[in-house]
Amino acid sequence: MRIYRFLHENKEYFGAIKEGRVYPFPKSEISKDFDFSPSAQNLDIVCVNFLSPVSPSKIVCVGRNYAEHAAELGNEVPKTPLLFLKAPSALITDGDSIIIPEQSRQVEHEGELGIVISRECRKLTENDDPFDFVFGYICLNDVTARDLQRQDVQFTRAKSFDTFCPVGAFIETDLDVSDLLVQTRVNGVIKQDGRTSQMVFPVDFLIRYISNQMTLYPGDLIATGTPSGVSKLNEGDVCEVEIEGIGILSNPVSK
Amino acid sequence: MRIYRFLHENKEYFGAIKEGRVYPFPKSEISKDFDFSPSAQNLDIVCVNFLSPVSPSKIVCVGRNYAEHAAELGNEVPKTPLLFLKAPSALITDGDSIIIPEQSRQVEHEGELGIVISRECRKLTENDDPFDFVFGYICLNDVTARDLQRQDVQFTRAKSFDTFCPVGAFIETDLDVSDLLVQTRVNGVIKQDGRTSQMVFPVDFLIRYISNQMTLYPGDLIATGTPSGVSKLNEGDVCEVEIEGIGILSNPVSK
Repeated sequence: MRIYRFLHENKEYFGAIKEGRVYPFPKSEISKDFDFSPSAQNLDIVCVNFLSPVSPSKIVCVGRNYAEHAAELGNEVPKTPLLFLKAPSALITDGDSIIIPEQSRQVEHEGELGIVISRECRKLTENDDPFDFVFGYICLNDVTARDLQRQDVQFTRAKSFDTFCPVGAFIETDLDVSDLLVQTRVNGVIKQDGRTSQMVFPVDFLIRYISNQMTLYPGDLIATGTPSGVSKLNEGDVCEVEIEGIGILSNPVSK
Repeated sequence: MRIYRFLHENKEYFGAIKEGRVYPFPKSEISKDFDFSPSAQNLDIVCVNFLSPVSPSKIVCVGRNYAEHAAELGNEVPKTPLLFLKAPSALITDGDSIIIPEQSRQVEHEGELGIVISRECRKLTENDDPFDFVFGYICLNDVTARDLQRQDVQFTRAKSFDTFCPVGAFIETDLDVSDLLVQTRVNGVIKQDGRTSQMVFPVDFLIRYISNQMTLYPGDLIATGTPSGVSKLNEGDVCEVEIEGIGILSNPVSK
């Protein structure tokens, strides 16, 4: 099911859409249980303002999680997941513009599978099922100023400029993510063309690992790393991240 | 003035304390204007639950901002501020325990001046006064797993374990921060003993610089770097960060 976030009478809701009507969740908590019956509360789609579907307290990213991508930047695959954070102020959603900052001469796309956490997730063991802590999945573009990333060593600045974290318009809750196409196109030309089965550390491993480094809270976002084929974005481009079973995230590029 | 955050009848407020009574801000917005008159709304101090005074959307930290500290870890002073992010899930407040994670054999204190942002702060120019965007200042301990910081290269994991960002119980709003003592003691023994005047990049420069890399929002926290003298924390220690004109942040250390 596709879950959206929207504003209605100055209140934020999560909800689903059916036949042009928006069904807000009955509770404030995010849930997959849903009531589409005619008696359930619902709103005309024109009465709500859609928001970015995620509002995470943190965005945890995984670097070099596809071997070919690590190699194309001259890096080895790490022995444990390489973690870094992206500033939540970088978030935009489908259709918003990626803005090239004046500091960089080499802004690149990194199409990725994003994981949205459903509930507090702390120190998972081998006995816990990490998928029990997943609300759903989202298309994500880990936009990166490659020149600044090399220069700074720390990834923070290169990956946290405003507009550098486009995410899809909705969260897909029902999906087997073990082997999905993750494709990034620039002006319709395929640049990145990987599969989630190529991840060095798969989704369940990542969630369990991260939960042992820091507590994840509902709505927190994990960016799972990007396949090979990263390339430079230029003013006027349109960058699309498509993930099989989710959909397409599309963003124009401007200065 | 010292500003606290507290919970009263399940609502969060900022406020000040005078003669055992709490004066919540009249508006939801953070403001330095205050009404201590008897007719102003006020509550008995025993009726409220105090919270950590900050709830930032991000914690932006500055590395190697004191020359002697950069040197003690074998690093050069950077030409521009070295930025990294700490996960907000690491926040604790005065009196809470710093927990040593099992992954690390070398957890160290880094006492620092913290800046709390008052309003949206984006691309400040030389014509803007960065202090106009400061709500106040807070004692902060940028606790770091030094062994993991060296191993990972990226600082994220080493600095984002739960409890690794103690902050003081209140925000001090009225302070000239150009030359303040920043002292860290472990079990009463002085370990770090610097002055904010020794910063490589001073407070106003940092705010302007960061605002040109990413938008800062109200409540966002900047950690301004630590003086030399970092040392290992052990179970049973008490670590205190004292900043002249603010006060003392004290945290026990446990496993």
